[in-house]
Amino acid sequence: MEKIISLAKRRGFVYPSSEIYGGFAGVYDYGPFGVELENNIKAQWWKKMVHDRDDIVGLDSSIFMNPKIWEASGHTKGFSDPLTECKKCNTRIRVDKALEEIGVFADEKMEEEEINKIFKEHKEEIKCPKCGSQDFTDVKKFNLLVKSNLGDFTEDNSSPAYLRGETCQGIYVNYKNVLDSMHMKLPFGIAQIGKAFRNEISPRQFIFRSREFEQMEMQYFVRPENEMSEFEKLREYRYNAILELGISKENLKWKQHENLVFYAKDAYDIEYKFPWGFDELEGVHARGDYDLTAHSKGCGKQLDYFDQESGERFIPHIIESSTGVGRLVFAILAEAYTEDELGGKTRVYLKFKPQIAPVKAAVFPLMKNKPELVEKARGVYEALKKEIPQIMWDDNGNVGKRYRRQDEIGTPYCITVDFDTLEDDTVTVRDRDSGDQQRMAIAELTGYIKNAIK
Amino acid sequence: MEKIISLAKRRGFVYPSSEIYGGFAGVYDYGPFGVELENNIKAQWWKKMVHDRDDIVGLDSSIFMNPKIWEASGHTKGFSDPLTECKKCNTRIRVDKALEEIGVFADEKMEEEEINKIFKEHKEEIKCPKCGSQDFTDVKKFNLLVKSNLGDFTEDNSSPAYLRGETCQGIYVNYKNVLDSMHMKLPFGIAQIGKAFRNEISPRQFIFRSREFEQMEMQYFVRPENEMSEFEKLREYRYNAILELGISKENLKWKQHENLVFYAKDAYDIEYKFPWGFDELEGVHARGDYDLTAHSKGCGKQLDYFDQESGERFIPHIIESSTGVGRLVFAILAEAYTEDELGGKTRVYLKFKPQIAPVKAAVFPLMKNKPELVEKARGVYEALKKEIPQIMWDDNGNVGKRYRRQDEIGTPYCITVDFDTLEDDTVTVRDRDSGDQQRMAIAELTGYIKNAIK
Repeated sequence: MEKIISLAKRRGFVYPSSEIYGGFAGVYDYGPFGVELENNIKAQWWKKMVHDRDDIVGLDSSIFMNPKIWEASGHTKGFSDPLTECKKCNTRIRVDKALEEIGVFADEKMEEEEINKIFKEHKEEIKCPKCGSQDFTDVKKFNLLVKSNLGDFTEDNSSPAYLRGETCQGIYVNYKNVLDSMHMKLPFGIAQIGKAFRNEISPRQFIFRSREFEQMEMQYFVRPENEMSEFEKLREYRYNAILELGISKENLKWKQHENLVFYAKDAYDIEYKFPWGFDELEGVHARGDYDLTAHSKGCGKQLDYFDQESGERFIPHIIESSTGVGRLVFAILAEAYTEDELGGKTRVYLKFKPQIAPVKAAVFPLMKNKPELVEKARGVYEALKKEIPQIMWDDNGNVGKRYRRQDEIGTPYCITVDFDTLEDDTVTVRDRDSGDQQRMAIAELTGYIKNAIK
Repeated sequence: MEKIISLAKRRGFVYPSSEIYGGFAGVYDYGPFGVELENNIKAQWWKKMVHDRDDIVGLDSSIFMNPKIWEASGHTKGFSDPLTECKKCNTRIRVDKALEEIGVFADEKMEEEEINKIFKEHKEEIKCPKCGSQDFTDVKKFNLLVKSNLGDFTEDNSSPAYLRGETCQGIYVNYKNVLDSMHMKLPFGIAQIGKAFRNEISPRQFIFRSREFEQMEMQYFVRPENEMSEFEKLREYRYNAILELGISKENLKWKQHENLVFYAKDAYDIEYKFPWGFDELEGVHARGDYDLTAHSKGCGKQLDYFDQESGERFIPHIIESSTGVGRLVFAILAEAYTEDELGGKTRVYLKFKPQIAPVKAAVFPLMKNKPELVEKARGVYEALKKEIPQIMWDDNGNVGKRYRRQDEIGTPYCITVDFDTLEDDTVTVRDRDSGDQQRMAIAELTGYIKNAIK
């Protein structure tokens, strides 16, 4: 894990936020290669969930919404973590997690009083992780919704605007708009990618659990009687889409939820084997009619569906798939991180699937002080770049060093222009994983790379 | 303007936020066609500003950052609008705008006292736009930065975390990280697309000035002596990139800033002729060494650049280009909105440049109740879709109605599969702008559309 975090920072994938100012907890920035990797992951998701599907359309709803939405969805009340503070060093601890560690079950949905009682019963077994003290404040439930003063010019915080805690609510409240403007017929889905925010007490595990994160969610509206069959189809579809990102089956596991919320029909997580063990990568949930019913009550408007053929009116049921860009970036980095020996030397490389690698190919002139090589190599580079995005130019140091640098960022192909190139218009194409080099005509290059990243 | 807003909502481009809950001021949602249009605009920007350039890399910094960043940049103090409230009906008014309307100059940078004095001198000329009263509170400067309680578990609002008011600060504070991990040499740029937030007192003009918006900014770091020559190059580059989105020269105008902030070397806006007149679409500014110097002081670290060849150390100067996705969407909708007469009937269509149209082509079976036509048309649709994203299937109503529907969303090509198709594998391709139809072999279709959207 430390190796991945260190490589990610050094090579421009993920930087801690506000580093020159001493940082900012629970938030990360994506560097030049990180943002390309993110964009490739998002593009694959959008292709799979929108462009490849006739029955799903996209949406980009705002981060801020009318506060009543969060009341109707239950978030202003139920969306909270139980918190205690060490009286000695002020360290804040999540009580449910602390109890879990000593084998005591406490649900974050429990009332403040109830969880406080359990905590007090086990107080002597719990120590402050920082100073070892056992003197804690009473348990207080802290709401995860982030509050702001957007649109509030009173400065008395009387009407907080919430930053969304999940992107799906923006889909539910636009269900009717989309239905009307797109003439959708059941079953149909609405997909969106966007930021969400949670006031996590202890953000941890790098980009796995951050306070600011990006979700990719698709809500699929179905006839009630088809909910479970569509649920199975979606589970399979999403599982395969994750495999296509280059994540291996051995590192994936289905986990069925044991404690379902009262309205849920069924819920599965796709777990990935992160450095600390299997943990949630994506959720596929059958949510019944809970969401549209809650918003129909909340806003006082009908959110039902009229089936023209049968003349029926009903509230569609919803199945959802929900994943996070940060978690996928992390899983893909962990999956790709490889140490091996090549040419008698140890090396580190990122074995990205070529489709999602932030750089598809790098082009080098054998020597940077030979103008004829540089000019020829620039020509190869420009021609490739015109057809394929994410091509990189590199002329620093010698070719061996360039290979190692490209290995570290997971570039699948390195193309070297040498003196033979000037004679016969062929280049050396070096494969990242095997280190093997092959001679190839320049005319074949674009086709070769295009095919490899298809 | 009303026509554009109405079409945008009805056809799934832009919905008012939280509509079923009575709305939420200053925030908008992008519907299925809106998000595709947005994505095309962002992709063109990323291509122009990152992939086409060897000297510019991307970044995705977070919305939240260490609050000290906003102190160092001057935003916690200087980033505010002067506000007064009507004592009768509580309507809030931006004082600088109200003064401007009666021909009195007041800068939003003026101190509260100063602007209050000017306001009182002209009080009798200003009326509340809602109730006509002339009884106002004292002028108060209201900071545009949106405050939140992210990471604050004290509930006393003692340490507000700000939502970023502009994306460029995330670039400045990552300048050193990017320099180190990418080994960049001057001149080089860092580009990013992301949300920003401003507590505008009176958000207005549809998606032109909203409280939540998406910026596309590129900060270009240069040697001090090259600042003005690079500035001219960037101005030309950005102007041409906007033309390439299909915006016409007649509707664009350069506006040089008259009142430069003290550190700026020069500043131009590219203005677009919006329905209410020319207004800012993009800014290209020469900012000197202000930003890096301010952050160097703020964080107490050197943010200079070491030139290996000459051995010099200095703070690079910055030129920036900054535009908003919402403003571009609006400009492109306004530019594309066309009413004409076709076949003796009036019609409305969106004359998008094919490259950025949310749907590139729609495929129809002539009749939906003829299985052989539907099957053939599905084949044409699937084949096109495999090669080109943003292809749509439409089998509702008759062909004439489908044409009008596709015109309204700006689809450049409509492809109809009819009985002749079953005989000779040709289809009808109908051009959006002229309404002309031509017969084309299915085998040529993909190449034809690909060429048209290049």
